[in-house]
Amino acid sequence: MNLDNALGRVRVVLSRTSHPGNIGAAARAMKTMGLSQLVLVAPQSFPDPVATARAAGADDILANARVVETLAEALEGTVFAAALTARRREMAVPMKWAREAAGELVSLAGHGDVALVFGNETKGLSNEDVALCHMPVKVPVSESYSSLNLGAAVQVLCYELRMAALDPGAAPAVEFEPATHEQIEGFYAHLDRAITASGFFNPENSKRLWPRLRRLFGRIRLEKDEVNILRGMLSAFEKK
Amino acid sequence: MNLDNALGRVRVVLSRTSHPGNIGAAARAMKTMGLSQLVLVAPQSFPDPVATARAAGADDILANARVVETLAEALEGTVFAAALTARRREMAVPMKWAREAAGELVSLAGHGDVALVFGNETKGLSNEDVALCHMPVKVPVSESYSSLNLGAAVQVLCYELRMAALDPGAAPAVEFEPATHEQIEGFYAHLDRAITASGFFNPENSKRLWPRLRRLFGRIRLEKDEVNILRGMLSAFEKK
Repeated sequence: MNLDNALGRVRVVLSRTSHPGNIGAAARAMKTMGLSQLVLVAPQSFPDPVATARAAGADDILANARVVETLAEALEGTVFAAALTARRREMAVPMKWAREAAGELVSLAGHGDVALVFGNETKGLSNEDVALCHMPVKVPVSESYSSLNLGAAVQVLCYELRMAALDPGAAPAVEFEPATHEQIEGFYAHLDRAITASGFFNPENSKRLWPRLRRLFGRIRLEKDEVNILRGMLSAFEKK
Repeated sequence: MNLDNALGRVRVVLSRTSHPGNIGAAARAMKTMGLSQLVLVAPQSFPDPVATARAAGADDILANARVVETLAEALEGTVFAAALTARRREMAVPMKWAREAAGELVSLAGHGDVALVFGNETKGLSNEDVALCHMPVKVPVSESYSSLNLGAAVQVLCYELRMAALDPGAAPAVEFEPATHEQIEGFYAHLDRAITASGFFNPENSKRLWPRLRRLFGRIRLEKDEVNILRGMLSAFEKK
């Protein structure tokens, strides 16, 4: 399943949200991460201009949001539901950290819609609501200050869902042409001549210099153009 | 180094923030993740009651925030700086994803303060500001809607920093003593003098040279000793 399919199958469910600004922030957070399904359980105020303002261009998420009366309705048709919870609860199901939970949600999205449920800003989720879900999830907040904002929590979880779906593994691709072994050795030979002529390098006294220089330039993974720049610089120093 | 030490050494630098609400959201995001050092470069309005309201109990972070005029001041005394950037920039040092960058920042925090820099809400960071940092960082946002809110971006990065600090095994070990920001800038100034005197660099003709040189040397993460070697080499070339 591709990225859009997986993320498109994740419902973000906000239960009994008090502040419409947080609904807007959640919509924006979702859209930046490629999620689209927002479900609101008995929001205090929705639609609301404050939500629209905070959504900042993610209006389509708000326009398509489904408003329902109960969490049970919100979860209809899902194959799995996770609930963000700040409190440690006496429950049979063990809590998962956000990262691990995101991986499981994305993987289960292969089978159908999955839900990630967020409770009210101050009261969180009721025990009954948590019991409707299959997995309690926790963000590893500081023990001395755990007051994660609702919009920020949605952002962190949507980010983890996207990371799980992308499974990027590697850094963004390199767009430059790396220098060949011969070009790099050519640069080292040139550097050797120039620093010997300048008096900086004396093979008798400074046996440890070359290993250090190779360590330094070896780390760069020089590109073709960069070898030319460095050699141009050396030539200018030599001529002077 | 323990968790609190590593996170306590990360400076969150907000450059030219327009909306005080985002400063408050950043403070709250930091505190939930165990970070404490906030530096504000020329904020439009600070202190501001809107920032305090959004900080929601993270007032101590705001009270201890340092306000400075330039990014260079904000980076004084750091051993490494990363910059969040949304745009793909020509000549930038290769970008890292947030997760990988967080691992490196936490690892480098073993050597001293490190900085993570966030630009203005609409304009981002100037090319000059990005050039002062050693690593551009990107959150893998959706290509069709990349409008990550500033407070949300701080939340995601602080979360990744905390995750990296919780599991330091994941981050690559650093075995050397990195050069400080001042030492690296000192090397650049020396290089500038030397290549100008040699005739290699002519500010009229080669506007693209400096971005390339910063990209090249920025990738190395120079060590203290290496800066000394390079500057010794430059001095020898200058004398010749």
